[in-house]
Amino acid sequence: MESTETLPRFLERARSWVEKGLERALPGEDETPSSLHKAMRYAVFGGGKRLRPALALGVCESLGGRAEDALAGAVAFELVHTYSLVHDDLPSMDDDDLRRGRPTCHKVFGEALALLAGDALLTLAFLVPAEWPPGGRRALETVRILARAAGSLGMAGGQVLDLEGEGLEPDLESVRAIHLRKTAAMIAGALQAGGVAAGAAEDQVELLGRAGISLGLAFQIQDDVLDETADSATLGKTPGKDRKSGKRTWPAAVGLEASRERARELVREGLALLGEAGIRKGPLPEIARFLADRKK
Amino acid sequence: MESTETLPRFLERARSWVEKGLERALPGEDETPSSLHKAMRYAVFGGGKRLRPALALGVCESLGGRAEDALAGAVAFELVHTYSLVHDDLPSMDDDDLRRGRPTCHKVFGEALALLAGDALLTLAFLVPAEWPPGGRRALETVRILARAAGSLGMAGGQVLDLEGEGLEPDLESVRAIHLRKTAAMIAGALQAGGVAAGAAEDQVELLGRAGISLGLAFQIQDDVLDETADSATLGKTPGKDRKSGKRTWPAAVGLEASRERARELVREGLALLGEAGIRKGPLPEIARFLADRKK
Repeated sequence: MESTETLPRFLERARSWVEKGLERALPGEDETPSSLHKAMRYAVFGGGKRLRPALALGVCESLGGRAEDALAGAVAFELVHTYSLVHDDLPSMDDDDLRRGRPTCHKVFGEALALLAGDALLTLAFLVPAEWPPGGRRALETVRILARAAGSLGMAGGQVLDLEGEGLEPDLESVRAIHLRKTAAMIAGALQAGGVAAGAAEDQVELLGRAGISLGLAFQIQDDVLDETADSATLGKTPGKDRKSGKRTWPAAVGLEASRERARELVREGLALLGEAGIRKGPLPEIARFLADRKK
Repeated sequence: MESTETLPRFLERARSWVEKGLERALPGEDETPSSLHKAMRYAVFGGGKRLRPALALGVCESLGGRAEDALAGAVAFELVHTYSLVHDDLPSMDDDDLRRGRPTCHKVFGEALALLAGDALLTLAFLVPAEWPPGGRRALETVRILARAAGSLGMAGGQVLDLEGEGLEPDLESVRAIHLRKTAAMIAGALQAGGVAAGAAEDQVELLGRAGISLGLAFQIQDDVLDETADSATLGKTPGKDRKSGKRTWPAAVGLEASRERARELVREGLALLGEAGIRKGPLPEIARFLADRKK
């Protein structure tokens, strides 16, 4: 981040940068099969927060790396995040009609096409680091981090625990086990991908991963809090859904106020770990503090 | 292949080799979430032909490479092939109850878990080349080839064309466009991955891709033929399903006999291209000839 750049300006720059990257990664709607590429683009260009790309860019630049070297990882993490939302919204999963304020992918394109669009987005996520700069060891490490974060021991496993936990007693340990995999693994991976793009040392990448776990847990706790407190217009999706479906959430386990306090504590832990990894100023600490205070 | 090895012996060696690789790649059933890993293992260890791994191994050894360098790519292609079957069988897709002679994954584990097991298998496929030997440039090239073969311009795109073609006039051009993406892209990719593992030159890998397209088309034509002519016990899945659901198949377009002739012609083309790539003896030409004559 240039020294005079404010956080909103950084986030705007990160967004515009990753939108261009996503545009470059996704085949056009005129490419065969047109319907599939339309469904993929509908899911990707739906106004997400682009948090993971911003984290990757912020880390890379804070450690002296170049934005162009972070782009492949940033795009890859956003593609995986998007695929997970498309599949998560399917009738056999959360059965959601609304996402980012618009009808969900399967509502517009049908179940089969939404399923395949999710599959194709996940596949595309691995093509991007394999074909874009910086290539070489950093690209392969990005593939490894992404596959670990998204797989059965990471995000996909978290979705399973989440589904299986519906209606069960929400004890803290099991809620944490879900959050760790469902959300924190991908946040941690995005931070690590930014570090790898900057050529960070192995122990630094490890610290970034630990920082990302703390910040990712804070992010998910705040997500659960907002699900209980925000309205649909602010949230862009159906609120109160978690509680109604009997999901294990942090507020269900310890209440709203203790949840907010835990999120703030995790942000402090995350900031300390970022500091150990050599990141003490710039957009990262500001984004970290924002995670526990955001309203949507 | 050792010079005295018969084709059945090679296929048996390839199978045992890839089963060990798959066992090594898949988390155990005791790993959290246990249900997910059970579903993944059920889908993978269901007695498939392991054709793609055998092709990768055959190419690698024929070009003087080592089996251990071909294993990551072979396992990766088999994992992607397996995920595609799991998702393809889902109710929102082909809605199949039987696969390889057993109940399909969602019949045993439910739709949500089958969906996530497929997602996790696809993700794992990219982790394997990123973490296993030979690493480096060959690993990244394997990731690239796999992502191209499986993505929206390859297999996933073929599934969409297949679904959209149901009930439409089965003209040859559109049937070929489906087969090319749905099946041939992954067969071609497996051959190329074997070549990359052996350190083949770029133009050799390109020839292997073209050989794979011919052989993959022959394989799919024979699949369509068998769907019309074989019985359920031989086939291990519900036969006659393609015709009943109005899919665009080769026999529907030109009839059974012309389909068989086209498959044999494609095998001849594939053999010529394999020869140009430097593979004139060993298991590959034998497997190629088998593709158009197989009974299941």
